[in-house]
Amino acid sequence: MKTNVHRIEPGSKVHIDDFDPDATPLCDDKSEGKEKSAAIEERLGELQELLYAEHVHKILIVLQGMDTSGKDGTVRHVMSGVSPAGVRVVSFKAPAPSELDHDFLWRVHAKTPGNGEIAVFNRSHYEDVLVVRVHELVKEKVWRKRYEQINNFEKTLAAAGTVILKFFLHISKAEQRKRLQERIDDPTKHWKFQHGDIEERKLWDDYMRAYEEMLEKTSTKHAPWYVIPSDAKWYRNLVIGSVIVETLESLGMEYPKVDLSGEVVGK
Amino acid sequence: MKTNVHRIEPGSKVHIDDFDPDATPLCDDKSEGKEKSAAIEERLGELQELLYAEHVHKILIVLQGMDTSGKDGTVRHVMSGVSPAGVRVVSFKAPAPSELDHDFLWRVHAKTPGNGEIAVFNRSHYEDVLVVRVHELVKEKVWRKRYEQINNFEKTLAAAGTVILKFFLHISKAEQRKRLQERIDDPTKHWKFQHGDIEERKLWDDYMRAYEEMLEKTSTKHAPWYVIPSDAKWYRNLVIGSVIVETLESLGMEYPKVDLSGEVVGK
Repeated sequence: MKTNVHRIEPGSKVHIDDFDPDATPLCDDKSEGKEKSAAIEERLGELQELLYAEHVHKILIVLQGMDTSGKDGTVRHVMSGVSPAGVRVVSFKAPAPSELDHDFLWRVHAKTPGNGEIAVFNRSHYEDVLVVRVHELVKEKVWRKRYEQINNFEKTLAAAGTVILKFFLHISKAEQRKRLQERIDDPTKHWKFQHGDIEERKLWDDYMRAYEEMLEKTSTKHAPWYVIPSDAKWYRNLVIGSVIVETLESLGMEYPKVDLSGEVVGK
Repeated sequence: MKTNVHRIEPGSKVHIDDFDPDATPLCDDKSEGKEKSAAIEERLGELQELLYAEHVHKILIVLQGMDTSGKDGTVRHVMSGVSPAGVRVVSFKAPAPSELDHDFLWRVHAKTPGNGEIAVFNRSHYEDVLVVRVHELVKEKVWRKRYEQINNFEKTLAAAGTVILKFFLHISKAEQRKRLQERIDDPTKHWKFQHGDIEERKLWDDYMRAYEEMLEKTSTKHAPWYVIPSDAKWYRNLVIGSVIVETLESLGMEYPKVDLSGEVVGK
């Protein structure tokens, strides 16, 4: 798939309004898309085993997006063919006081993947230029330096063999409204609803400006951003799964060759 | 299912030879068993979401067994209906020097589950009365005290709301031979083969004695051991899945009631 249509080319100017959250340019049929996704998810399971066996590459997947944009759903669906032992999901919440005693990358660095490992960050260090910016939790001159700090940090990870893929799950404000309303209407979804969600929603435009600048400043060759149209969940799963599978396939991984010629299993 | 036939009743005498690794007392038809398993795995996905939503109970699943007994396969299959975000798998390897500077439960305690979380230990603190005993890595008077230390530790976890389920994946020596040989014969499985595996196999009887005493001394009301016949993988998955699902269902979990009557989603 030509998934690069959703990639932000490093150095390009970004206008968030140019991206249609409901577009499906790479597949216009839902049931065809779901079929493809199923095959991709199965393939991802095989590739994860190979990744682990080879033990050379580290995979870091970053998911960002507004409330209800589908970060949890992406993990559930895209990773459904992978053993839970093969992927580590880290959900970054508001930092604890002991974490705030350190620089903003400290707690994140601790959770980065090792050889053969896939780590998924559900929210990430990018919140430090998103929610932190929108709510002015630190001064502008502090968060503004973070774009460069993040790029340098990710460059270090990449130099050590980390493949970094970053996905912005882009939904429309109308779609968010629908999904929040569902959480209010369905008692089995109440627990997903946070009183702060509605307050955050009022800051939609501020968040879009923050996302825009983030995409522009931190989409790099070694750690590109993809803007994923996410109003249609099936399309979101299809594209994210495809990007991950295509990236893993491009690594030319092989099962390690081991000389077992002398090995005999005793009675 | 009457899964308690596989449970070690606290205080009972254990003779490892009494357990047939190839028995399938709760289901004698493989394809029927696989069908049941599929339904159980799907149900487990629902229960995990409820567990997370309620955020009251902590679930700790311990997997122990000889090399090739199927610990990885159990995770892959039994947890296949659960989002990777909903289960944390911890594989305990030989301890690092910095870990050996602490008591044997230190690194294990750090990885125990929190509210709403399922943690699976692939090997565990029980290695400290298994491999440590067989290879005499510490003196007998040291490891012998550990049964009580483990029971007390698990009692503390249980008192804090941790449900503990421990599974010994019991395979026959002949089945292990077959599985090791497969790893030698199949190049895509070479990476799973460790040169030490054949040496460890020579200590089979010592390990069985160590498992026997472990089962007898550490199967408690709050943290029972199940001896799972594991020569047939489908039966192993069926029974372990059933025990977990039945246990979660017995907790009487409910989605939290939240008053959302005043909430209005803005335009």
